[in-house]
Amino acid sequence: MKVVILGTGNVAYHLANALRKSEECEVVVYGRNAQALETFRQQLSDVAVVQNIPPDADVYLIAVNDDSINEVSQQIPTSGALVAHTSGSRSIDDIQSHIRRGVFYPLQTFSRDISLDYSQIPLFIDAATTEDRQLLQGLAEIFTENISIADDEQRRYLHITAVFVCNFVNHLLARGKEISDANQVPFEYFHPLIRQTLDKALQHPPKDVQTGPARRGDTIVTNTHLQMLTGWHLTIYQTLTNSISDMYEL
Amino acid sequence: MKVVILGTGNVAYHLANALRKSEECEVVVYGRNAQALETFRQQLSDVAVVQNIPPDADVYLIAVNDDSINEVSQQIPTSGALVAHTSGSRSIDDIQSHIRRGVFYPLQTFSRDISLDYSQIPLFIDAATTEDRQLLQGLAEIFTENISIADDEQRRYLHITAVFVCNFVNHLLARGKEISDANQVPFEYFHPLIRQTLDKALQHPPKDVQTGPARRGDTIVTNTHLQMLTGWHLTIYQTLTNSISDMYEL
Repeated sequence: MKVVILGTGNVAYHLANALRKSEECEVVVYGRNAQALETFRQQLSDVAVVQNIPPDADVYLIAVNDDSINEVSQQIPTSGALVAHTSGSRSIDDIQSHIRRGVFYPLQTFSRDISLDYSQIPLFIDAATTEDRQLLQGLAEIFTENISIADDEQRRYLHITAVFVCNFVNHLLARGKEISDANQVPFEYFHPLIRQTLDKALQHPPKDVQTGPARRGDTIVTNTHLQMLTGWHLTIYQTLTNSISDMYEL
Repeated sequence: MKVVILGTGNVAYHLANALRKSEECEVVVYGRNAQALETFRQQLSDVAVVQNIPPDADVYLIAVNDDSINEVSQQIPTSGALVAHTSGSRSIDDIQSHIRRGVFYPLQTFSRDISLDYSQIPLFIDAATTEDRQLLQGLAEIFTENISIADDEQRRYLHITAVFVCNFVNHLLARGKEISDANQVPFEYFHPLIRQTLDKALQHPPKDVQTGPARRGDTIVTNTHLQMLTGWHLTIYQTLTNSISDMYEL
């Protein structure tokens, strides 16, 4: 099976790295940027890189920015092969020009320089036909056993949840670091606390292990904190404190 | 050295468990609730539990709710011993009735049934005299090497940062789980993503590894998400998306 991955970003890199380990699978990475392809060549020396889209692949995986999915899909030769994108938010119908279209959505955050246990990645697939779903499932099984089918709406809710538990969580850490930076406290001091917070929330329903002044209804402390904060720190503190009060009916 | 821990909650439990391992230290736990003390007796069989505050301790550690610190401190015999509370938000002067007063603040989230590597806990101490700071430092050194001095204001900012990176992070996970629950998606699907999010944010400045539609300025996706959300999910999504846009000047 010949798989062409279209894109040279973080998702493309990790998909190529995960799929190249299979002997059944010939992986080719397509990109227009010669420098990005050279980086690929250096990091994944056994993966072919090309600047023209090969017309003879069995599956094309589009791993580009959401906004470019439709445009890139139209550049793929309409050979009758399966074309799938990797986005949580875009419809399967963003790939309009191909009859055999699908989605191959890995629920994970990808960074180039951070290694990943691919076997732990939940993979959500969709396709118009049973045969194409099975084809994508076979591709996913190369690196993960955690495979589900999800339609456009289910994928959108998966993505929204991911925004809360990944993007927004990271942003709170970034905002927290701003406060510790402003007070000359090394952010590393908070690492054990952050690790423990996550360990707890992965062992129990997070709602059951909520702690802190907002959870206790300790308005003396929360009001003191509000007086010490400004700007986005203040806005975020107010919003999340009120949300906690409301969740526990305090 | 005889140490009396006042309180039977999670902080009291973990302080007793961390300190009892030292041979130099005799740990006694004081509480008024007989049932809570019985639980202590069962879980930490080598720690004495009492329902009257012993008058002969060298150090009294108050590990009760913030609102009760002052009241409990007044019940301690004014023997000339050092009395310290364990709160991030309360002033050292909440312990008014004792000349030798201090703070012994562990920057960590404590749950009874989740074990902890005490050597990783950053401990922030304060006291009116050098001798008492050294006494508290010696106590902290029993279980951690990560000891700093922090005054009232520094501790308050530590606590605010902890609210962001611990309490608020946990709340986002709780809100995220509500969304996945409503869509019949097991929250366990998000565990690899959550783990990876944290691994990234502990290896890099979180601001540098921010991902997601808000970071990309992808208003098509964020607007779609906003249309799909209601209530606190909507409010939180709006607040944090705007905060991210502002941080990266999008």
